[in-house]
Amino acid sequence: MRKDELKALLNDIANGKISVDDAILSMKKAPFEDLGFAKPDSHRELRQGTAEVIYGEGKTAEQIESISNSLINNGQQTVLITRLSREKADKLNDALSLHYYDLARIGIIGHIPKPDTDTNIVVASAGTSDLPVAEEAAVMAEALGNKVTRIYDVGVSGLHRLLSYSNEIMTAKVIIAVAGMEGALPSVIGGLADCPIIAVPTSVGYGASFGGITALLAMLNSCASGVSVVNIDNGFGAGYLASMINKIGAKN
Amino acid sequence: MRKDELKALLNDIANGKISVDDAILSMKKAPFEDLGFAKPDSHRELRQGTAEVIYGEGKTAEQIESISNSLINNGQQTVLITRLSREKADKLNDALSLHYYDLARIGIIGHIPKPDTDTNIVVASAGTSDLPVAEEAAVMAEALGNKVTRIYDVGVSGLHRLLSYSNEIMTAKVIIAVAGMEGALPSVIGGLADCPIIAVPTSVGYGASFGGITALLAMLNSCASGVSVVNIDNGFGAGYLASMINKIGAKN
Amino acid sequence: MRKDELKALLNDIANGKISVDDAILSMKKAPFEDLGFAKPDSHRELRQGTAEVIYGEGKTAEQIESISNSLINNGQQTVLITRLSREKADKLNDALSLHYYDLARIGIIGHIPKPDTDTNIVVASAGTSDLPVAEEAAVMAEALGNKVTRIYDVGVSGLHRLLSYSNEIMTAKVIIAVAGMEGALPSVIGGLADCPIIAVPTSVGYGASFGGITALLAMLNSCASGVSVVNIDNGFGAGYLASMINKIGAKN
Amino acid sequence: MRKDELKALLNDIANGKISVDDAILSMKKAPFEDLGFAKPDSHRELRQGTAEVIYGEGKTAEQIESISNSLINNGQQTVLITRLSREKADKLNDALSLHYYDLARIGIIGHIPKPDTDTNIVVASAGTSDLPVAEEAAVMAEALGNKVTRIYDVGVSGLHRLLSYSNEIMTAKVIIAVAGMEGALPSVIGGLADCPIIAVPTSVGYGASFGGITALLAMLNSCASGVSVVNIDNGFGAGYLASMINKIGAKN
Amino acid sequence: MRKDELKALLNDIANGKISVDDAILSMKKAPFEDLGFAKPDSHRELRQGTAEVIYGEGKTAEQIESISNSLINNGQQTVLITRLSREKADKLNDALSLHYYDLARIGIIGHIPKPDTDTNIVVASAGTSDLPVAEEAAVMAEALGNKVTRIYDVGVSGLHRLLSYSNEIMTAKVIIAVAGMEGALPSVIGGLADCPIIAVPTSVGYGASFGGITALLAMLNSCASGVSVVNIDNGFGAGYLASMINKIGAKN
Amino acid sequence: MRKDELKALLNDIANGKISVDDAILSMKKAPFEDLGFAKPDSHRELRQGTAEVIYGEGKTAEQIESISNSLINNGQQTVLITRLSREKADKLNDALSLHYYDLARIGIIGHIPKPDTDTNIVVASAGTSDLPVAEEAAVMAEALGNKVTRIYDVGVSGLHRLLSYSNEIMTAKVIIAVAGMEGALPSVIGGLADCPIIAVPTSVGYGASFGGITALLAMLNSCASGVSVVNIDNGFGAGYLASMINKIGAKN
Amino acid sequence: MRKDELKALLNDIANGKISVDDAILSMKKAPFEDLGFAKPDSHRELRQGTAEVIYGEGKTAEQIESISNSLINNGQQTVLITRLSREKADKLNDALSLHYYDLARIGIIGHIPKPDTDTNIVVASAGTSDLPVAEEAAVMAEALGNKVTRIYDVGVSGLHRLLSYSNEIMTAKVIIAVAGMEGALPSVIGGLADCPIIAVPTSVGYGASFGGITALLAMLNSCASGVSVVNIDNGFGAGYLASMINKIGAKN
Amino acid sequence: MRKDELKALLNDIANGKISVDDAILSMKKAPFEDLGFAKPDSHRELRQGTAEVIYGEGKTAEQIESISNSLINNGQQTVLITRLSREKADKLNDALSLHYYDLARIGIIGHIPKPDTDTNIVVASAGTSDLPVAEEAAVMAEALGNKVTRIYDVGVSGLHRLLSYSNEIMTAKVIIAVAGMEGALPSVIGGLADCPIIAVPTSVGYGASFGGITALLAMLNSCASGVSVVNIDNGFGAGYLASMINKIGAKN
Repeated sequence: MRKDELKALLNDIANGKISVDDAILSMKKAPFEDLGFAKPDSHRELRQGTAEVIYGEGKTAEQIESISNSLINNGQQTVLITRLSREKADKLNDALSLHYYDLARIGIIGHIPKPDTDTNIVVASAGTSDLPVAEEAAVMAEALGNKVTRIYDVGVSGLHRLLSYSNEIMTAKVIIAVAGMEGALPSVIGGLADCPIIAVPTSVGYGASFGGITALLAMLNSCASGVSVVNIDNGFGAGYLASMINKIGAKN
Repeated sequence: MRKDELKALLNDIANGKISVDDAILSMKKAPFEDLGFAKPDSHRELRQGTAEVIYGEGKTAEQIESISNSLINNGQQTVLITRLSREKADKLNDALSLHYYDLARIGIIGHIPKPDTDTNIVVASAGTSDLPVAEEAAVMAEALGNKVTRIYDVGVSGLHRLLSYSNEIMTAKVIIAVAGMEGALPSVIGGLADCPIIAVPTSVGYGASFGGITALLAMLNSCASGVSVVNIDNGFGAGYLASMINKIGAKN
Repeated sequence: MRKDELKALLNDIANGKISVDDAILSMKKAPFEDLGFAKPDSHRELRQGTAEVIYGEGKTAEQIESISNSLINNGQQTVLITRLSREKADKLNDALSLHYYDLARIGIIGHIPKPDTDTNIVVASAGTSDLPVAEEAAVMAEALGNKVTRIYDVGVSGLHRLLSYSNEIMTAKVIIAVAGMEGALPSVIGGLADCPIIAVPTSVGYGASFGGITALLAMLNSCASGVSVVNIDNGFGAGYLASMINKIGAKN
Repeated sequence: MRKDELKALLNDIANGKISVDDAILSMKKAPFEDLGFAKPDSHRELRQGTAEVIYGEGKTAEQIESISNSLINNGQQTVLITRLSREKADKLNDALSLHYYDLARIGIIGHIPKPDTDTNIVVASAGTSDLPVAEEAAVMAEALGNKVTRIYDVGVSGLHRLLSYSNEIMTAKVIIAVAGMEGALPSVIGGLADCPIIAVPTSVGYGASFGGITALLAMLNSCASGVSVVNIDNGFGAGYLASMINKIGAKN
Repeated sequence: MRKDELKALLNDIANGKISVDDAILSMKKAPFEDLGFAKPDSHRELRQGTAEVIYGEGKTAEQIESISNSLINNGQQTVLITRLSREKADKLNDALSLHYYDLARIGIIGHIPKPDTDTNIVVASAGTSDLPVAEEAAVMAEALGNKVTRIYDVGVSGLHRLLSYSNEIMTAKVIIAVAGMEGALPSVIGGLADCPIIAVPTSVGYGASFGGITALLAMLNSCASGVSVVNIDNGFGAGYLASMINKIGAKN
Repeated sequence: MRKDELKALLNDIANGKISVDDAILSMKKAPFEDLGFAKPDSHRELRQGTAEVIYGEGKTAEQIESISNSLINNGQQTVLITRLSREKADKLNDALSLHYYDLARIGIIGHIPKPDTDTNIVVASAGTSDLPVAEEAAVMAEALGNKVTRIYDVGVSGLHRLLSYSNEIMTAKVIIAVAGMEGALPSVIGGLADCPIIAVPTSVGYGASFGGITALLAMLNSCASGVSVVNIDNGFGAGYLASMINKIGAKN
Repeated sequence: MRKDELKALLNDIANGKISVDDAILSMKKAPFEDLGFAKPDSHRELRQGTAEVIYGEGKTAEQIESISNSLINNGQQTVLITRLSREKADKLNDALSLHYYDLARIGIIGHIPKPDTDTNIVVASAGTSDLPVAEEAAVMAEALGNKVTRIYDVGVSGLHRLLSYSNEIMTAKVIIAVAGMEGALPSVIGGLADCPIIAVPTSVGYGASFGGITALLAMLNSCASGVSVVNIDNGFGAGYLASMINKIGAKN
Repeated sequence: MRKDELKALLNDIANGKISVDDAILSMKKAPFEDLGFAKPDSHRELRQGTAEVIYGEGKTAEQIESISNSLINNGQQTVLITRLSREKADKLNDALSLHYYDLARIGIIGHIPKPDTDTNIVVASAGTSDLPVAEEAAVMAEALGNKVTRIYDVGVSGLHRLLSYSNEIMTAKVIIAVAGMEGALPSVIGGLADCPIIAVPTSVGYGASFGGITALLAMLNSCASGVSVVNIDNGFGAGYLASMINKIGAKN
C-alpha cells in the first residue's frame, strides 16, 4: 500500500467519512481477486508500471483462462502468458483472442503497444540453440512497448560476426546478452558497450555445462563492468528489466 | 576501437596522410601503457564513460602506485582502488594523496565529483555484517557522481523496519539490495519498488550459507520482477551498474 | 520396547508365569507383521501417538492393499497413503473404501477424526505451483485431527497479500510455510509470528532453483527465529510435525 | 505493526487526538533505536515473546556493548550474546556485568529466569566434539526459562548408551538432537520418542563430512517422523525453537 | 599375466621350445576373445577366482548373447548378467537357458553352485524400496556359492525391528547393509556387529536425498568401525565383495 | 579478419580503388551468410584449416539441410554433422547424399579425404559403453584426413588387455583416451606413451559417476604428464584437436 | 547388550537371585564410565573384538589423558590415539608411557601385540604425499596384531613400479590402496589382485581434486570388483577393517 | 618396460646369457632408486623424452635435496622443482646450485637447454593475478627447450588489447591461455587461432568463481574448437604439454 493511499484513508477517518473498523477492513481488502488457487493482482499496473504476466508452466489452460478473464474484467488491457506450450495456446485461442509467438513460447491477449521510446534494446545471442530464450526476452520487451534489435548467432569464437555489429552494440541503451555453454558473450560485449548489460545464461550445452550452471557462473564472474545476471533461461526477466531501464530515458 | 576512430584512420590513408603500413601499426598501437605486469587503460573513460578502477586485492602497494601514476600521467582525474587494505592505503598515502574509506575498503585519488543527477540510488542492506559490501557499493556510486541514500539493517524478519522506509524505496531510481544468509531482501523490495533492483549476495552467514551461495541462488530465483544479480560481495559492480542506470535520466 | 513392557515381562519371569526361553522369544517377537516385502507396524499408534502412514510412491497398488489390510486387521482405524497417484487410488478403491484428495495426492481409508483441539494450524504457500505440497501438509494435518487455515498465493513479492492475513498469522499455534524459488516466505512470516514455523521448500522453479535446493538453503539460513526445515516437497512431514506441536496444548 | 496498535492509532485519528500527518509520522517511527550500524529492536520482547539476542560473531566488543546498552536502556532485562569469544567477553565484562558460558560461547547480561514450566527439553549429542553446539542450545534454552536434560556422547554406533536413556527420551516434551558425521542420531531418537525432534547438524568430521553438509542432508532425509532441521551448528536456533515448543503447554 | 605363466614362457624360450618372436607374440596374445565391441575375458575365473559377470545395461540382447556364447565356448560354466531388463531376459531365454530373478534384475546362465561355506552373509535393508538393490546383492552372493540371510525393512526409525535380528547380525561373517534416504543403517549395525560391514547406498528417496548422494555421504562418515562403502545402487559389487570375504574362512 | 586481408583493404583505399565508406561497409560485410536462425561460416576452412561442422542436436532436419546447402553453395566440399539421430539422417538423405555412421552418430556430406599423413591417431576406450563417444572421435579424425587405430575395451582393471597394445600406444603421434566411471585410462596410458593424450570423459556409469563428472575430475587430476581434457562425451572436440596435432608433423 | 548377557540376567530373575527393579537398573547400567564430556567404552574389546581407539583431533591433551586413564583402569591393555599431534603426544608422554609414530600421527599406550596371523596386509600408496594416510593405516593394522607389507610411491602413471610388486599384490589377503588426485590405484590393483581392496582417498592434490572428492568418486566408480571405499584420509578405518578381514582366516 | 627391452631380455634367455630366474629378477628390478619415501625415476628421460620434475609442495627441503641428488647421480642433467617456495629454494641453494624463478615458483638445477625449435609457444593470460600460473607454464616450457612469447593482461573485456597481438596468436604453433574468473580467454583466442589451445583455469577471483571452478567449467564448454583443458592452476602441465606439441614439428 502506497503512502498516498494510506494518507487518503487516514484523512477519510479524520473527516469522519469512514469508521475505524471500516478503515481496517478497507486496508485488509487486498487489491486482488481471490480465485482460490491464485490471486491475480489487478493493481500491479499501477504499482509496478506494467501489465500482469502469467507464468504458464504448470498451469492448465483452464487455470490460465480463468486468471486472464479475471484480469481483463478488472480492466487489464494486455495480458502476457510466458512458457506457454503450443497446445495450451490453441486451447486458449478458442476462448480468448490470443496471439502466439512460437519460438518465444509467449501468448499475448490484447494489443501490443507501439514503442513509446526512440531508444533501442539490443538482444544478442551466442548460438542457434539460444534462440528460444533470446526470443522470450525480445518479445517480452516488445510487448512492453520497446524497440528491439536482434543480433543472433554471434558467439565469441567467431569474433568477426560480433564485431560487425559494433554499431548496434555501441548505440544501444541496454543490452540483453544470451548465451549457454561457456557464457562468455556478455563479457565480450561488456567490453565494447557503454550501457547496462543483462546477462541471461541458457541451459544450452551438454556434459559440464550442467544445464546452464557453467554459463551462469561465468556471467557472474564477468570481468566486464556493468553486467548483471538473471536466472538460467529467464528471458522474461531480462526483457522486463531491460524495458524498465529503456524507459528511464523516456520518462524524463 | 570505435567506428569513428576507424573511419578517421581510413580517411587519413585515403588522403595520403598516412601510409598503409603506418596505419596498421597505428591500429595495433593499443590505447594502453604496457607496464609489463599490467596494461592500464587510459582510454576507458572515453570508451566506457567512467574513471579507471583498480582492483587492489592481490596487488602490492608498489604495483598499485605504479598503475595509478601511469593513469594520472595519462590525464585521468580520479582513480579508485577497491579491496584496498588499510595497510596498503597507508603506504600509498605517502606517495599519492589518497582518501581512504575504511568500511568500504576503497581508496580514492583525486576529487570525488559532485552528483550530476537529482535522482537517488538507494543502497539497502539486511544486516550489520553486510555493511562492508553495502558501503563498497555506496562509496563507489558516490565516487562516480551520484546521490546515495543508505537504508541499513532492514532484514526481512523485521518488516516494520523496512516498511518505515517505503518512501525512499518507492522514489528511488535504482536500488541496490545487499543481503547474506537467505538473501530475501531484494525479493521483498522488488515487490514494493518500481525500478531496477541490483541484488548483491554477501558471504555473511555460516553453515549452509556456503559463503554466499545460498543468498546468490535465492536472488537469482527471486519471484519479484526487475531484479538482477551480481557476484557475491561484489559491491563495486553493483555501484558501478547503479551509476550507469541512474545517469540515463540525466543524459537525456 | 518400552520400559513398562520390559518391566511386565521381567515380572512374569520372576513370578514363574513365563520361562526364560519364552521370554527371550517374546522379546524378539516384534510388534509387526512380516509381509515379506514390508513389516507394517501395528503398534505405532501406541508408540508414536498416530495412525500408520504408507508412503505410496514406488509401491504397487497390490502392495499398498496388502499392507493396508494387514494394518486394518490389526485394529488400525485410519490408514493414510501419501504420494498416491489417481490411478492407484482408483485401483485401491475397488477393494478398500478410500477417500482420495487429488491435489494432495493422499488417500485415506477409514474416518477422518474431528479436530480435537481448538487451536489452528496455518498452512501458507507462496505460489500457485506450491499448492500440491501445501495441500499434502494441510490434508495430513486434518487427517490427524487438527483445524487448518489455508493462506495460499501469498509470496513475498506482493507483501500486501500476505499482510492482509496478519490476523491469522499472529493467532496461529504453529505455521507451515511452503515455498519454492527463493524460499523467502518462512523468513517474512517468522518476523510476524510468535509460534514455531515449519518451513517446507518445494521443487517449484527452474534454472538455478535446482529442484528446490535454493529454497531449502534459504530456509535453513532464515534470519528469523523459530524456523526449522523439512525435506524438499515433504508436505507429509510438515503436517505430521505441525499436528504434534498443535496437540501439545490440547494434552495439558 | 500489530493490528491492535494500528486500530488504536486509527481510533486516535477518528477522535481527533492526533492529526493525520502525525499519525503517518508515528507509523513510520519504528520501534527501534538507530545506532547507525544497527537498529536494536526494543519491542521484540512484546512482538516475539522473548529477550533480544545479539549475534556476537563479526561484531567488535564495542559494537556489542553499544547495542547492549541501547537495549538495557529501553528496559530489556536479559540480553544474550551468542558466538562470543572469551576475549570479547572479558572486554565486555569490564563495562557490563556479564556471565560467560565457555563451552557454549554465550554471554548473558542480567538474570537467567527460573524455569517457568515443569516439562523438559532433552539435548542429546552424538560425540564429544559436538558439545559446543549442544551447549549453545542447552544454555540458550535455560536462559529462556526452561529445564534442560543433557544426554551427551550417545552416538548411534553404541546403541546401549543411547538406550540407557530411554526414559528421558520418552518423557521429553521436545528433543534437540545434535550430531555431525553421518547425522543419524535424530533418526534413531525419532523412532523412540513421541515428541518433536529438532535436529542440529554440526560441522564435526573430516573428508566427506563437508563441514556438516552430510549430517544436514541425512537429517533432512530422516526416515523418522516429527523431525525438522536447523542450520549447521545452529545451537541457538534449536534452543530458541525448543523453548517456544516447550512453553506451549505452559501457556494454556 | 601371472608370474608363473611368465616363468613358464621364459623357460620355454630358454629350452628352445619357442622362438623369441613367438614368445612376444604369445605374450601379446591376450587371454580374451575379441568380438570387436567387447573382449570377454575367459581367464578371469582363474585370475580373480569367479565367473564372468556381464553388465547388462546399455547392451542389446544380441550383444549379451554374443558375449555369453563366447564365454561358454571358452568353458565358462556360469555366466551372470546384471541390470538385465525383463524384456531382454525374455529375448535371451530363447537362445540360452537363462534363469531370471525379477526383483534383482539378474539373469543366470548355467547352474548356481551349492554354498561351499557354512558361514553366513547377512543382507539387511532399511525400506521396502531398497529391495531391488538388496536382492541384487543377495542373488549375486548366492550365485557365487554363499549362504545368504535376508533381513529386510529394518530401518533405524523402528529399532525394535532391527534388534529382533540381533542374533543374525552378531553371528554373520560379513554384512551388507542397504539403505537410501539418511543411510544410517550401516552405522547402527556397525555398532552391533563384529564383522566387516559393506554399506550400499541406494537412490531411494526424494528432494535432498539427491539420488543416493545423502546416503552415500552418511555411510562414508559412519561413526562405526569396520564399515566400507560401494557405489550407489551397486548391489552387484557388494555381493561380490561379501562373497570374497565370506570365502576367506572357507579357503584356509 | 586476418592481417593480410586488412592490409589489402587498406591498400585499396590508399590506391583509391575503394572509398572509405565502402571500405567500412566491406569490413562489416561478414564472411558468413545470414539464414536468420544461423550464420554458417563459409570462410572457416581458410581461417581455421578445416571443413565446417554442424552440431546436429537441437536442430531440425530442415534447419540442417538449409545450413548444409548454404555451405555447399559457398564451395564447401565436405560437411560434417555431429549428434545426428538416425531419423534426421534418413530425412536428410532424401535431399542430400549423406553417409551416416550409426555408432558415431555422424553424417557426412561429400567425400572423406584420404589420410594426408603417415602418422597415427590412436583412439582407446575403456568399456563397451564408451564406444559411441570413441567412434565420434575416430570418425571425426578420419573425416579430417587422418589414419586412426582403434583400441577398444581396454579398461584399467584388466591391464593385460591394454598392455597387449603397447606397441600401438608407444608409436602413436597423439592418443585419444575415452573412459567413463573412474576415468583412469588416460593416466595409465599417459605413463606408457610419449605423446599428447587427449582425455575424453564419458557419461557412462551410474550412481556416483554423476553423468561423467567423476571421470572428468579424475582426468583433470591425472598424475601423468601430457594429458589434457575435453568436455564430457565430446568425441568431436577430441577428434578435431587430435587431427590438429597429428597434422603438425605433416605440414612441416 | 548381547543375547547371552540378557539370558543370564533373565535367569537370575527367574531364580530369585535379583529383583525385577534391580534387573532393570542393571540393564540400564551401561558398560561405560561417564566422564561428563565422554563415555569411554570399556566393554568394546569384548563386543567388537579390539582395543579402544581415541580420536585425538579436537580433544585436549588433558581430555585424552583422562579418557586413557579411565580405559586403563578398566583393564584395557592397549590404547591407541589417532590424529594426535606431536605437541599433544609430548604432553601425554609425561603422564603416560606413550609410543608416538610421527608420520602416522598415532600414539600407542601399552604394548603392540605380536602378529597373530601369518597372512599379510599390503598397504600401497600412489605418491609421496599420501604417506601420512598410508602410515596411519599401516600402524593401525600393526597395532591390532597384523603383519603389514608397505608398497609406497607406486602411482599408476609409472606402471613398472607397481608391476614390480606383482608378487606381493597377488599373495596379499587384503590390500589397502591409498591415493589422492585421480584415485586410480585401487582400480589397477583390483585388476591384479584376488582379494578385498580397501580404497582410501586422500586429500592430496590441488584445484579440481577438491580435497579428495575426486579420488573418492573415482574409487566409488572403480571398474574393478572387490573394491570398497572409506572416507577421505581415513587411514584408521582402513587399517581397522583390513585387520578384521585379515583375522578371519586366523580365527577359523 | 619397452618392447625392445623385453625383446633383448628374451633374446638373452634364448641365448643362455641369462637364467630364467635372473630374467624374472631383472624384470622386477625397476629402473628407479628407492629412497623409502620416494622412488625417483631415472629412466623417465628415455621413456617420456624429458627431464624429471619434482613437485615441491608438501615436500621438505631435505626430501627435495635427497631426490635431486639421486637423480643427478643417475645422470640426470636438468632437474626442475615446481611449487617451490622462496624459503625452500634458499635452503636448497646452499647444497645445490639452483636457479630460482620467483613468480613462477620454479627452481632449476643444471642448465636450461637452448630452444631446439624455431616455432613459438604463446602464453596468454587474462589478468595481472593470473601471472604466477602463466609464468609457471612459460618457464616450464623454456626449461624444456622452447621459445616462448608472453602476452599478458589481455582479458576479453578489453578486446583491443588482445587483438593487437593477432599476429602472434595467428603464427603460434601452440597457445597456452591462462584465465580465472569467467575463463573466456581460450574461447576468444580459439576463434582467432589455427593451432591447439591449452586452457589453464586459475583460482583467481572471489565469490562465485569458487577457486577456479567457474573458469574450469567455462573452458570445458568452450564453443571454440581445438581447445583442451588442464587442472586449475596447473601451469606446469600446460607447459609440459605445449612443449610436447611444439616439438612435434621439430622432430620430423
